[in-house]
This record gives sequence, structure tokens and C-alpha cells, in this order.
Amino acid sequence: MPRETKSSSKKLLIVGGVAGGATAAAHARRLSEDAEIIVFERGSYVSFANCGLPYFVGGEIPDRQDLLLQTPESLKARFNLDVRIRSEVIAIDPQKRQVDIRDLSSNKTYSCGYDDLILSTGAAPVKPPIPGIDQEGHFSVRGIPDVERMTAWIEKTRAQRAVVIGGGFIGLEMVEQLHQRGLEITVVEALSQVMASFDVEMAAWLHQELASHDVNLHLSDAVDRFDAPTENENAAASVVVLKSGVRLPADLIILALGVRPEITLAKAAKLEIGERGGIRVDERLRTSDSHIWAIGDAVEVRDNVTGGWTWIPLAGPANRQGRIVAENVLGAALIYSGTLGTAIVRLFGLTAACTGANEKQLEKIDVEYDVVHLHPASHAGYYPGAHQIAMKILFRSDSGKLLGAQIIGNEGVDKRIDVLATALKAGMTVHDIEELELAYAPPFGSAKDPVNLAGMVAQHIIRGEVQNAQWHAPPDPEKTVVLDVREPEEREESGFIPGSVNIPLAELRQRSSDLPRDKEIIVYCQTGQRSYFASRFLIQKGFQVKNLSGGYRTWRIAKDSK
Amino acid sequence: MPRETKSSSKKLLIVGGVAGGATAAAHARRLSEDAEIIVFERGSYVSFANCGLPYFVGGEIPDRQDLLLQTPESLKARFNLDVRIRSEVIAIDPQKRQVDIRDLSSNKTYSCGYDDLILSTGAAPVKPPIPGIDQEGHFSVRGIPDVERMTAWIEKTRAQRAVVIGGGFIGLEMVEQLHQRGLEITVVEALSQVMASFDVEMAAWLHQELASHDVNLHLSDAVDRFDAPTENENAAASVVVLKSGVRLPADLIILALGVRPEITLAKAAKLEIGERGGIRVDERLRTSDSHIWAIGDAVEVRDNVTGGWTWIPLAGPANRQGRIVAENVLGAALIYSGTLGTAIVRLFGLTAACTGANEKQLEKIDVEYDVVHLHPASHAGYYPGAHQIAMKILFRSDSGKLLGAQIIGNEGVDKRIDVLATALKAGMTVHDIEELELAYAPPFGSAKDPVNLAGMVAQHIIRGEVQNAQWHAPPDPEKTVVLDVREPEEREESGFIPGSVNIPLAELRQRSSDLPRDKEIIVYCQTGQRSYFASRFLIQKGFQVKNLSGGYRTWRIAKDSK
Repeated sequence: MPRETKSSSKKLLIVGGVAGGATAAAHARRLSEDAEIIVFERGSYVSFANCGLPYFVGGEIPDRQDLLLQTPESLKARFNLDVRIRSEVIAIDPQKRQVDIRDLSSNKTYSCGYDDLILSTGAAPVKPPIPGIDQEGHFSVRGIPDVERMTAWIEKTRAQRAVVIGGGFIGLEMVEQLHQRGLEITVVEALSQVMASFDVEMAAWLHQELASHDVNLHLSDAVDRFDAPTENENAAASVVVLKSGVRLPADLIILALGVRPEITLAKAAKLEIGERGGIRVDERLRTSDSHIWAIGDAVEVRDNVTGGWTWIPLAGPANRQGRIVAENVLGAALIYSGTLGTAIVRLFGLTAACTGANEKQLEKIDVEYDVVHLHPASHAGYYPGAHQIAMKILFRSDSGKLLGAQIIGNEGVDKRIDVLATALKAGMTVHDIEELELAYAPPFGSAKDPVNLAGMVAQHIIRGEVQNAQWHAPPDPEKTVVLDVREPEEREESGFIPGSVNIPLAELRQRSSDLPRDKEIIVYCQTGQRSYFASRFLIQKGFQVKNLSGGYRTWRIAKDSK
Repeated sequence: MPRETKSSSKKLLIVGGVAGGATAAAHARRLSEDAEIIVFERGSYVSFANCGLPYFVGGEIPDRQDLLLQTPESLKARFNLDVRIRSEVIAIDPQKRQVDIRDLSSNKTYSCGYDDLILSTGAAPVKPPIPGIDQEGHFSVRGIPDVERMTAWIEKTRAQRAVVIGGGFIGLEMVEQLHQRGLEITVVEALSQVMASFDVEMAAWLHQELASHDVNLHLSDAVDRFDAPTENENAAASVVVLKSGVRLPADLIILALGVRPEITLAKAAKLEIGERGGIRVDERLRTSDSHIWAIGDAVEVRDNVTGGWTWIPLAGPANRQGRIVAENVLGAALIYSGTLGTAIVRLFGLTAACTGANEKQLEKIDVEYDVVHLHPASHAGYYPGAHQIAMKILFRSDSGKLLGAQIIGNEGVDKRIDVLATALKAGMTVHDIEELELAYAPPFGSAKDPVNLAGMVAQHIIRGEVQNAQWHAPPDPEKTVVLDVREPEEREESGFIPGSVNIPLAELRQRSSDLPRDKEIIVYCQTGQRSYFASRFLIQKGFQVKNLSGGYRTWRIAKDSK
């Protein structure tokens, strides 16, 4: 059934020519040769690779040209698009269906009417009014000019010490790339952990990775002000002074305090703004004005897990929204089904990825959930080169429905988060992920893939085969015995939980009479697997048992990070 | 809700101690401390890594110990299992609920009664009655003794030339590993392609990879006999003589002609055998006898895509079945939901993976399907190190429901097949996979991941935005114009379809009047993306257009392989 050709001769204006905006324009053209399509972009570049900016600073992407996915000329030739750079839309008149544009080159303003208008205004870096925040050597990471000025500054000042303010995605990517350039780096984060989308015991792996690369990390400490260096201080940029009083002289300062939706235009046009500060759109991406649509980092979306409104600036959703809005503007009725918040970051030898809700988010809503931690091998343990992956899975206590996942490790982290993001989107339960049939050959996985194992471990809880203890619940020594079922050599090598008694799994059947029946026994091993075996034995023998989720590995990293 | 403890004191016998059998035994013990569990294994090893055998031959897995996941002793200590190796079950008496066992060490036989019996008898190598097939220097790859004898033979004879008979998974893994040991290799395959689970234009990438590593490939040619070497032939093993008359002297011969379900015992016990030659079980894995269960390579399963019976020997399903059968024997009612046939193989620099149905399978059943080919980059093109991935997606023409996928490339093939296997299991459509929210940072993927792109390209067909031409349908020059929208340099560099006219995409709007309106235009570019843009323009301008799926890349590899 061939599609009816929508030879719409609509006049379509798009504000913003990066990610979602460029996608919407190109897709609109594929749907309608006759539409008049004009894209206004305030900056000097359209359709550039903003996610690549840190890698340009680090030199992994050597050439600025590599970041330019399209130019106004290529978009003209390929899609007959009228792309106007250095053109700032300064006002919208929804009644007249008209926008005012300032040409930043000539400084002249002009007006342009529309049938439909798409706002793809993106997000702007958060820049709190900290004294001294605006000065030479301080940089945000938002556009190509930012990173060009930054690299010029590093070269000019021969910068040696950088302070990165903010431990989110951009912050950590900049840490890695500046470290690669040989700079000495300090990270300042007001929260008690980096990467707020992870729970603290998972973020702890990133804290360890930073420390092992000699990156200084100041957690739970915010910037009070930026001082000029004193006589004894050497700082090409400024001295970062923390609330705690710590002074950090820096040749380069990266402001990575997050971003906020860019809604100035939308607000002035009296479009509805949501509770999270983004433009409110319906499921077809239409704003409160029927001829104005909005997409990308500027809009609020539905959280696929909690169902509430959320604001998650990500490139993937922005691109999908660009295609959907083009269809809808030209007469279709496609629905944007919401956002999971699937995200990934590389930090030196680690990859950290997450999807869906974390524990902090679930605590705020009315849902009974459970979590499991596990540390499976990235591929068959008997084939060389396998690494342990730290996984955390969140699921509904009643149905076992998947709610979220966090994975940190090296090889295969991206694969497992994508499988879990797919399962989450499909509404799968932990039983379903136990049953997934994933590709197995020794270099790639295991007959029981880490995702299957996560399902199995969660199923143990759902089916009531075992109850979990969590790393953050300190056992009461009066009422609890902590039992370590590892071999004595493992205790010597990697340490143990203070006060724990040691009966290796293989000796447990013979020695279980040593254990008290009037106390709760918290069993642990290195990862939670052998202790599960031990738990099942002890439960069947009538003991009161809990299995420490994630074992000594999770307990230890969480404690070390405190 | 804690689970009721199943303190079943059943007597449970398991025939076969590898993969499914070992899993079933260990899981049964976790469910019931009181059950009596005995595992009989004909061979000398239990729970060994059979998928690792080729890598032991190649030396990547240096130590035989690495292949031994468990021993009878470790299973005794950890799970209180009675594991008897070199113990062949030679008969089952379903009426008496009793089996007869021959102890291969003492050659004594004895009987053993059961409450429930699990058959995990696996599969045996296919060995057709080809003259001369049984002799020194000819090896199957099924157990640890096989590969130990093989490596000893290679060393003893200083083998230089190997012939691998059969181009399936094991065959290709052996090719790679023997090549790594420095052997000169010839592959003989009776079919017209290697890896029957792929369609021919996808298998073509593997043919090219073999050729580029100087592996000789004889397709559509079967073995007639194995001769002794003549005076002029040098062959430590034998001379493989093909039906075509070709003689291949070999120092080492690998028989990788596939496997068949091992059902001797089941047949003798009059259990129902299915149409594919495997033991027939119900969805709880029970055979036609209510006290006998069967799992793994020995049983037929439901094909998740076609719904028919199939026989797919894979380690992942065998493991899942092992857990399910243990639960069911001990009173649960878990269902084995069928098999997708997700599989993966590494061949030198390529990874080839598939899930669900291929075109050959779909042609045999009553379903209207479409296919798309695409060649996306493994991660963001602007970040260094991206490789092109060849993808083929099969889906229902009406609903867009996913039916299968084949992916060949390097980085990220395993990830995408696992995502698609998950989507397939969830019953997703190509629209759903377009909308998947996968993890994106430049080193890992793209804002539009290859899986999303596959969904988009398939949606173009479902929505009727464009019609596809396929590589195998030769255009009729009387009625068709073949239009190449690449740049002239690309034609010079990589070649072109004979007779095609060239109008680069960027010039198409100016030059479309050169094209005939009374003929069908088949548009192509390198991968199918620019030609889609061109197709959309031409369709809207009233031309009759088809887009060549997968572009020149798919057309070329398929032609080269013929």
C-alpha cells in the first residue's frame, strides 16, 4: 500500500539547526518536496556532533571538520533546505504566525511568517551566579567555538592543572580527555557522588577509577567563588575556592554544572512550560499553541518507567522526536512514547551505563521494588580476557517487572544496557530476561549471559527462594551472624567484613551445626553466587538466612567510597 | 512471600553431565536438599566447556584445566551430587522406572531405580558412510579427548595442510583456530554457501573473509571418498576426493558435518520422537512418559518465529532448559517458551550473528515478508575506529512484526544481534525498534543506532514511502533504468552496476528531467541511504522508482561470491 504523497506546500520554520532541528528539516523534505522549509540557527554551525566535543579537546577527533556532519550548503544541495546560520529568532507572534529574526552578521532584524513552527532550541549550560565565574580560562562545553577557544587556551597557557566543576556526563568525559592531554585534574561535585543517574554504590566504581588515575575528587563540596591567584598560587585561569575553604589553583576551569532547557522564546510566546522547566508538549509533540511544536532538550517528556513528567536531555530521543514531529506537522499522527533515560559514559578503563529508574527516583514514588547486585564475567570465564561487570537491577517486588538497570565495567557494558533498555521498553519482567536467548560464543558471552544471570538472581527474590541483605543495612551483632563462605585465601587476599565467621561453601554441609539457630545469618561470598548456594542449603535446614546482594565486591566498593 | 521449601526426597537420575544435565542437577539440589540426585556421564568429564574446544586447539585457551568448569568432586562438595563418569546408561525400563548402567572402567553393569529421569543425552557428530571416513588424522570436535588427540596429532605429524569438511559454526571456528596455528586450510561445503543459518548474500561476507586469509573454499561440492595418498601426494591423514574430482591431500581432517540428536536410549524406551529426529517434549519438557523428561541438544523445541517444531542445538537454551526441568521435576509448572536460534561466530576479523528466521526458512511457510539490507557504522562516524556493519532485517509485510535478523561486521555485531533477539522475543515491530532508546556516546554507538536505522529503513517499506529492489532481481534493460546517485569518484573507486547512469544526489534536483518517465528507475548508492533520499524526491516528482536495498555494497558482495 504505497503512501499517499503529501505534496504539502506548507511553510515550515525550524528554530535550531542541531540534532532534532536538523533531523526534522531533512525528514520533512523527504515527506514533502513542495514544503518551504527554513531553519534558523543562532550559532555558526548546524548539525554538528555536540557529543563529540570532549573528544576534540582530547585530540581523539583530530579535525574540526569531523564534527561537522552537515553544512548549510550540503543541506541545500541534498534536501533543498534554506538553512540560515548566525540567525537568532528573537520573538514569536503566535497570533500572526510570525517570527522575528536577527541576522547576527548584519545585525538587521526581519520577520518571517509560518504555517507551522518547530522549536528545537536545545539546552543552555547552567551558570549559577558564583562570584568570578565569568573570566578567561573558564569554559563551558556546548559548541564548537567553546572547544576551539579551550584548546587554544590550553596551548597558549601551557595549562597543567584543570579543575572540572560537575561530575556528570560532560564533566567525566572532559576529565578523561584532559587527562589524555597530560593535565593534572581535580573534580568538584556538590553531591556526595559523581553521575547522579547512578546510585551511590555504583558511582563508587567511578570514584575508584578517578582515584586510580590520580584525579582528585572533592565530593559534597560546592564552589564558593573564583579568586584571583595570590602570590604563592600559580593559576593561569583562577583559583577555585570551595565552601569547605579548599583552594584549587587552576590553569583551566571546565564548567560542567549541567544544562537547563532553553525556553526564553517559548516563555515570551506564552507557551505552556512544565514543572521541570521544559516546554510542555502533547504526545504528538505539539505545544499549547496548535501551530507550534517543540522537540529535543527544550521539552519535557514522559518518563517511561514512572509515568511522570521528566526532563532528560539526550541526543537519541531528540533525533527520534525530530522525525516524529516532521511526520506530524505534515499530517501524520505519530506518538512519542516517552523516554527511558538510557545513557552511557566512558571513563578511562570503565564504561558506565544506565537505563530506567534508579533507587533514588523509585524512593520518591509509590512503588514496592527490590534490587539485586551481581558481578558476572563479560564473556565465558574459560576464554581469556573476561572482565567482571558490576550490575544493579531494579524491579517491582510484586510482578518482577523491570524498572531500571545500572552497569559498570569494561567489555560488554554497552551491550547489556542496550538489551536491558530493550527489555524495559517491552515491559519485560525479570523472568523474561532470565529467558532471553542471547548470542553465545566464548569471545562474546556466556551460555548464561550476564543479562540472564541478572534475571535469575532477581527471580530468586521474586520466587522467595532467598531474601537479600543490602550493603547499606549494617547488621546488628546482637541479632545477626555474618557468614563468609569464601575460601580463607580469598579473605586474606581481598579482605572481609569485620566480625564475619568463615565456613567455606564446600565445608558447609559438615559444619552447619556450628551456626546459631536463634540469630539471623547474613551469608556472603565474593559476588553473591556461592552465598546463594549456601543460603539455599541453610534455609532448607531451617536457619534464618539472608544473602548479601553483590557480595563482598559491592559491600567493599561502597564502603571504600565513603 | 517466601517459597515453600520443597524438601522432596525424590530419587532423580540424570543421563548426561554436560551443559543442561549439570545445570539441572545443581538447580535441583538448590531446590531440594533431600532429593537423591545421581548424574551418569558416559565420558570422562562433566560440565566441560564444549564451546571452548576450538580455542583449545588454537592455543587461545592454553590449559585443558580451563575447560573443566566442574569436576565430580567439586559437584559433590558444592551440591552434594553423586556424579558418575565413564558410566553409560544402556537401557531404560519405563515400567519399572529403572535404568541399566555400564561402568566403562570395570565393564560391569548394574541397575538403578528412579522417581524421575532426565535425559540430557546431547547430540552426536553426523558421520555419513563415506568410504575411508574413519582413519587416523580424521577428527570430530565434540569432547576434550577429541581435541587432545587432535593437538597431539598436529604436533606429531607437524601438520601443514588441513581440510575442514563442513562450513558451519564448528567448521569456521576450527578454520580460524587452525589458521592461527599456521596451517594451510581448505574448507569443503556441499551447499552453495557456508553457515546455512544465514542467507547467501550475507554468507558472502564470510566467503570473502576466508579468501582474504588464503583459505581455499570449495562450495557446492561434497566429499566422495577419502583416499590414501598416491606417490606424488603428501598427506599425513588422507586425500579428500570431492565429487567434482578435486583431490585435497591433508595432514589433518576435521569432520564438521553437523550433529544429530542422540536418541538411541529414548528410542529403545519407546519415547515419542519428533519429525526433526529429536525427542518430543511438552512445554514443561516432559517426554511421552510422565516420569521421563528431556532437555538440550537431544530434544525438539518450538520455533519462536514460525511456531513449528525445530531442532536447534545451542548451549544457552540447554542451560535454560536445565533449570526449568529441575523446577518442574520438583513440582513447579514452568514453561519453556521455545527457541529463536540466536547464534554467533567469529571468523578472523568478522563476527557473524543471526536470530530468528532467515529468508530460506520464511519461503517455506505461509507468511508475507519483506527484507531490508543496510550498512551502518558501528559507532558515530565522526569518532575514530568505526566499521561498517552489514545488517539484514526480515519482517512481516503487513504488520511490520520482526521475523529475523542477520548481522556481519566487526565491532558491535554481538550487541545489535542481542538487542534484536530481545526485540524478537518481545514480539516487537520494526516501528518499535526504530523507537528503541539505546545507549549513545561516540565510542559506543550513534544517536541513531544501527538497530534504530534498521527499523527506520524497514518502516520506509511498511509505510509505502519507497519500494525496494533486491540484489537478486536482475533489472530488465528494456523497462528499467539503473540510476547511481553516488559521486563519480565513488564509481571509479569501488566500481558500479554495469549500464547504470550516474547523477550524484546533489545534482538530482537539477538533472531529473534527463530521466525517463516511462521506465522504472532503480536507484542505488553505496549503502541505500542516499538512494532513499533520491527515491523520495523522484517519487514525489512522479517517477516510477525502486530503491536498491543495501546499495552497491550488498549487490557487489553477492555478485562477487557467485
